Amino acid sequence: MSTQTSMPTAAAHDAVDAPVVPSYVRDGWWLPAEDSRLAVVADASTGEPVARFGAEGLDLGEVVEHARTVGRRTLGEMSLHERALRLKELAKHLFGQREELYEITVSSGVTTKDNLVDVDGGIGTLFTYSSKGRRELPNSNVVTEGPIEQLSADGSFLGGHVLTRIPGVAAQINAFNFPVWGMLEKFAPAFIAGVPTLVKPATPTGYITAAAVRMMVESGLLPDGSLQLISGSARGLLDVLDHRDMLSFTGSADTAGALRSHPHVVHGGVRFTAEADSLNAAVLGPDATEGTPEFDAFIRAVVTEMTVKAGQKCTAIRRVIVPEAQREAVTAALGRRIRDKVVLGDPRAAGVTMGALASRDQLRDVRGAVEEMLAAGGRIAHGALETPVVRTLSGEDATADEGAFLAPIVLTWEDPGAEAVHSREAFGPVTSVLGYRDLDDAVRLAARGGGSLVATVCTHDPDTARELTVGIAGHHGRVHLLDRDTARSSTGHGAAMPQLVHGGPGRAGGGEELGGTRAVKHHMQRTAVQGSPDLLTAVTGLWHTGAAQRLAGDPEFGGSAEEIHPFRKSLAELRLGDGVASGLRTVSEEEISAFAQTTGDTFYAHTDPEAAAANPFFPGIVAHGYLLVSWGAGLFVDPAPGPVLANYGLEDLRFLTPVAVGDSIRITLTAKRITPRVTDEHGEVRWDAVIHNQDGEVVATYDVLTLVEKENTTYAGWNA
Amino acid sequence: MSTQTSMPTAAAHDAVDAPVVPSYVRDGWWLPAEDSRLAVVADASTGEPVARFGAEGLDLGEVVEHARTVGRRTLGEMSLHERALRLKELAKHLFGQREELYEITVSSGVTTKDNLVDVDGGIGTLFTYSSKGRRELPNSNVVTEGPIEQLSADGSFLGGHVLTRIPGVAAQINAFNFPVWGMLEKFAPAFIAGVPTLVKPATPTGYITAAAVRMMVESGLLPDGSLQLISGSARGLLDVLDHRDMLSFTGSADTAGALRSHPHVVHGGVRFTAEADSLNAAVLGPDATEGTPEFDAFIRAVVTEMTVKAGQKCTAIRRVIVPEAQREAVTAALGRRIRDKVVLGDPRAAGVTMGALASRDQLRDVRGAVEEMLAAGGRIAHGALETPVVRTLSGEDATADEGAFLAPIVLTWEDPGAEAVHSREAFGPVTSVLGYRDLDDAVRLAARGGGSLVATVCTHDPDTARELTVGIAGHHGRVHLLDRDTARSSTGHGAAMPQLVHGGPGRAGGGEELGGTRAVKHHMQRTAVQGSPDLLTAVTGLWHTGAAQRLAGDPEFGGSAEEIHPFRKSLAELRLGDGVASGLRTVSEEEISAFAQTTGDTFYAHTDPEAAAANPFFPGIVAHGYLLVSWGAGLFVDPAPGPVLANYGLEDLRFLTPVAVGDSIRITLTAKRITPRVTDEHGEVRWDAVIHNQDGEVVATYDVLTLVEKENTTYAGWNA
Repeated sequence: MSTQTSMPTAAAHDAVDAPVVPSYVRDGWWLPAEDSRLAVVADASTGEPVARFGAEGLDLGEVVEHARTVGRRTLGEMSLHERALRLKELAKHLFGQREELYEITVSSGVTTKDNLVDVDGGIGTLFTYSSKGRRELPNSNVVTEGPIEQLSADGSFLGGHVLTRIPGVAAQINAFNFPVWGMLEKFAPAFIAGVPTLVKPATPTGYITAAAVRMMVESGLLPDGSLQLISGSARGLLDVLDHRDMLSFTGSADTAGALRSHPHVVHGGVRFTAEADSLNAAVLGPDATEGTPEFDAFIRAVVTEMTVKAGQKCTAIRRVIVPEAQREAVTAALGRRIRDKVVLGDPRAAGVTMGALASRDQLRDVRGAVEEMLAAGGRIAHGALETPVVRTLSGEDATADEGAFLAPIVLTWEDPGAEAVHSREAFGPVTSVLGYRDLDDAVRLAARGGGSLVATVCTHDPDTARELTVGIAGHHGRVHLLDRDTARSSTGHGAAMPQLVHGGPGRAGGGEELGGTRAVKHHMQRTAVQGSPDLLTAVTGLWHTGAAQRLAGDPEFGGSAEEIHPFRKSLAELRLGDGVASGLRTVSEEEISAFAQTTGDTFYAHTDPEAAAANPFFPGIVAHGYLLVSWGAGLFVDPAPGPVLANYGLEDLRFLTPVAVGDSIRITLTAKRITPRVTDEHGEVRWDAVIHNQDGEVVATYDVLTLVEKENTTYAGWNA
Repeated sequence: MSTQTSMPTAAAHDAVDAPVVPSYVRDGWWLPAEDSRLAVVADASTGEPVARFGAEGLDLGEVVEHARTVGRRTLGEMSLHERALRLKELAKHLFGQREELYEITVSSGVTTKDNLVDVDGGIGTLFTYSSKGRRELPNSNVVTEGPIEQLSADGSFLGGHVLTRIPGVAAQINAFNFPVWGMLEKFAPAFIAGVPTLVKPATPTGYITAAAVRMMVESGLLPDGSLQLISGSARGLLDVLDHRDMLSFTGSADTAGALRSHPHVVHGGVRFTAEADSLNAAVLGPDATEGTPEFDAFIRAVVTEMTVKAGQKCTAIRRVIVPEAQREAVTAALGRRIRDKVVLGDPRAAGVTMGALASRDQLRDVRGAVEEMLAAGGRIAHGALETPVVRTLSGEDATADEGAFLAPIVLTWEDPGAEAVHSREAFGPVTSVLGYRDLDDAVRLAARGGGSLVATVCTHDPDTARELTVGIAGHHGRVHLLDRDTARSSTGHGAAMPQLVHGGPGRAGGGEELGGTRAVKHHMQRTAVQGSPDLLTAVTGLWHTGAAQRLAGDPEFGGSAEEIHPFRKSLAELRLGDGVASGLRTVSEEEISAFAQTTGDTFYAHTDPEAAAANPFFPGIVAHGYLLVSWGAGLFVDPAPGPVLANYGLEDLRFLTPVAVGDSIRITLTAKRITPRVTDEHGEVRWDAVIHNQDGEVVATYDVLTLVEKENTTYAGWNA
């Protein structure tokens, strides 16, 4: 633990020689009084003391209030994009120090491969959130969600939804198994949302979280009050949270239930979400018999899930559900692969592929669970409960009397319906093999878990994949489809990807984390907003049909000679509602015909009067939709170089009224959303485009997406 | 209650002469045993007995199991669109019988205007859900949500999200104040999702809900097990619900808390959502002084919210927050309008605009709450706690000794920070006027409610609207912006619109109902799905890039002469992955120039080589994006009449690589989603379009939306 010497340490008041891990609160490091009781954490492989923890005397009310005042203010001074960009800088900083984190984590019994999941996975989550936050959210602090609906016949009263950050703190209680990832995957979306984080890691690995927090603090990148850390017990935390706050918990289902029944959750309105370990299944399809690539991939996946983090993962596979005829073959293959591939020992020793459990307490719990399952009808097909012989730091093999080691255990069950296998979890390298009769039976068995984080469905048959997945989806937060096509490229059953939701119904806690920007939105309140187009525009930052416009162009259609064409305005000059209204242009049969010939789009509706008239939607020959939008661009464009750099896309195009020969069209283009980029000299402008015909009917609506310079400089030379 | 005689009635075992309201369970009517204890409900205006209730002896476990088995099966045999269409038929049926419902509801003390909210509002919610369900959801039982993300570098492992219905029952406990709307607004989204409903209305108006259920049952439109009704106490309901089920509660915050602390919610994984009445605010902007249209609209809105349903609405305005300088004027104006417009009495009497509270129990509660507020510093500015003189059925005015009448009461407070005004709710025609210093103070006062369903913000100033709305949004489920532009068209502060979410944080229960198809999705489990493009296509019903294709067209680019062009296939013949691959077409400067001239789109990037080259994104003159998609259509189209009727739109177009003079483009079009309509002989096909250049780089991607016939018949004559 030499790496923690830059943190203040308390003088030991007893004989244990391990540093006291400080809390980080109110923008400073905090240590418990010298005479307070401290918890001692031991090295998982050697049993040596590693760190001590205590938070007695810490005023949690002051900590929470600091977040609600200082943290909320500093975060609120930045936009969603600015906070997302800051995450990238934090990720880069941590990436540069990851070797140091590896050195610290080894005390918790993890291997280098385990670190890829925890340390690198955590940093990767920051990078992903930084990128998604800037790509998928607006550069403001009000997110609009879903369509704006017209609530009155005359269009003067509209309604939509906005998301704004919750008015409190994001308290986060994490499990011991992912001290870095567990903190970062909760911190990232809270930070982008603008909600201050108060993190309470599990004590057994809390020194690792504290080290990561120290690195983040030292980077100077954290706004004041945006991140606080409690090292030690946070008893009483819920007493100081209220309806403004949220509490995200990862850990056991029992603790989740205890927190959920706190009066401040039940009556006080604290938003509570839980992610609990569950009895996850892996289902082998009937097609995936021995000898198929799917069978092999399945065996590899199960053994990986048993051994990574020594099976101490919420997502680990606890129930291996296979065709009854394959049960023996699967059990045998699991045993062979464990024998061939798993080297148990001190992760600091060469060649070790599986480390220890996090503590001897954990070891006792896991053994107890296995013993219960044996009493309930399970049979050990591979492995043993006895203390195993493991590879020690010196490279020699010895009985692991000091560490928290357990050899992988495969159980088989004659009765796949036995209650214990679906309800008793051994949180270690333990799995059970169950046989199923048919797909319905497989679905029933998977559902017996009472709600799970994830299930693997291993099949190469699309119908089997659909039937099993749709059958079990209602009971699962994630379904991982494994077959020959993904055996190499899959990120694995156990990995919670930042893009996908993590969490599950029922026993899995009923919560939801990650899932891309969904998790940012979980830190925001959804609010319906109703009002006039003008006021909705002001509140949402999105121009709505019916709101005030300042249009250049044709006075007959709302334009004014006094308005500057919006293509002449930089982001600094452009305002929502700025736009241009064109005059009418008449469509002739010759022009439709010429468009058909030059583009090659000779669809009969544009070329054959008789066939076109027989079509239920057309009066006769009609103009191509593509002609209309092409002409539309011709009608709104201001061709000379200027701040508008490019049209990079188009969205939500709908053709509403056909345009026949002799009809005329005009277009109105209005600035709808203005999004300066935090990292470029330009940004996006979304324009509302409406094409009308000569009778004022709406012919087409769409959004035009352009890149526009922040300042009107690059092209200064080109502007007359 | 003559209208309920077609229901079976139990013989009275005591002297009370009122029918026993039956439950509707396991697809039949159920009555309690003759000797069971029954609750008696009285007419709100006359005090005469109206109905009796009892559910003693009803086996709730069997009821829930019937829903989970029979209800789930019958609903699962229909698609989302089919169920949505069924709702429309139910709505039509109820609309035809609404006069009968009005007659029944009058016993609960409501006026004709109140019925518009409850009965017509409920039926309207069914219509809206029917329409939105078919427009916004796929015609299957698997909803895909959000983008599909590439999770491996080679594109062989993808991830996305699907929503499938929860595997249990939607239990719904409703409040007494909206016996029809309250049932229908919860039933509609559950039904579309395919989740059986078990509704438990509040007993005081449960006879009205039972009448509506009877009409729905008699229509013959309800699939077996899809709707069950408990008339009487449902004590023990949570004991028979588990992680498969959800419970949606509307009522008091206290009862919500009691339900939320049930072991099956805390530990058992029952999904629980609550909508509780809250201390909603209306905030008057500093600009909205006396004499402005906003001031008048504000006064009207407050009085309406005080008197509709006699103020017994979760959304009623309890706190009127106005500039301190306006406090007296507002108080006086409220008093004047109440005096001029409110006629209290039996809703059956002519001219009555405000009816009774639902029961004398309610009256007692409301009086008690007002007395507490008076003790805490409130002062009655208008109205009185005494029994009022009201208009009776005979048209005469008399003291209302029998009914549950209370005159509207306006309280004012010298201390706007008094705790009682922000925490004690009088669930009747009572409101409090509070003065604020500045906008920050107004935000603080509104937030003191501890989470509310809705607030009105009354201002015509966009900056004030933004500051107040963004300031209070985190504490509110809805913000209603009121100004001169919406004074006539607004649907009102109190009305929960089906398009917008209803619910709020904290005291308001923390739940969310309605909000369009969001509420359907609240009855579904979100599940991340990972796998190969082929398996994801099979599971989601959405073709994914990388999945198998069967392409007609150019063999050099994946096409085959043996495949039929997809435009020749009806919905019955078309399969996901069917498509066409074109050959290359080269773009010349002359063609770009001609396109610029004919369309009028002479933007410099297409016409001025020097200026184009100076643009940071272009190598020189480039083809118009609109030229590319127009040519794209020319390259994929099969022009003769056939099952493809029209291209009605285009989505998600992105231009990724510029196309310079001399470059060539080709297109691949692939059937991505096939959605037959339940009400037409055609449906939608969404096509994935990708334009590549001669080097295989992606030039543009988009989705083409077409209407395609179900069977290849209409145009049979045209097909060669």
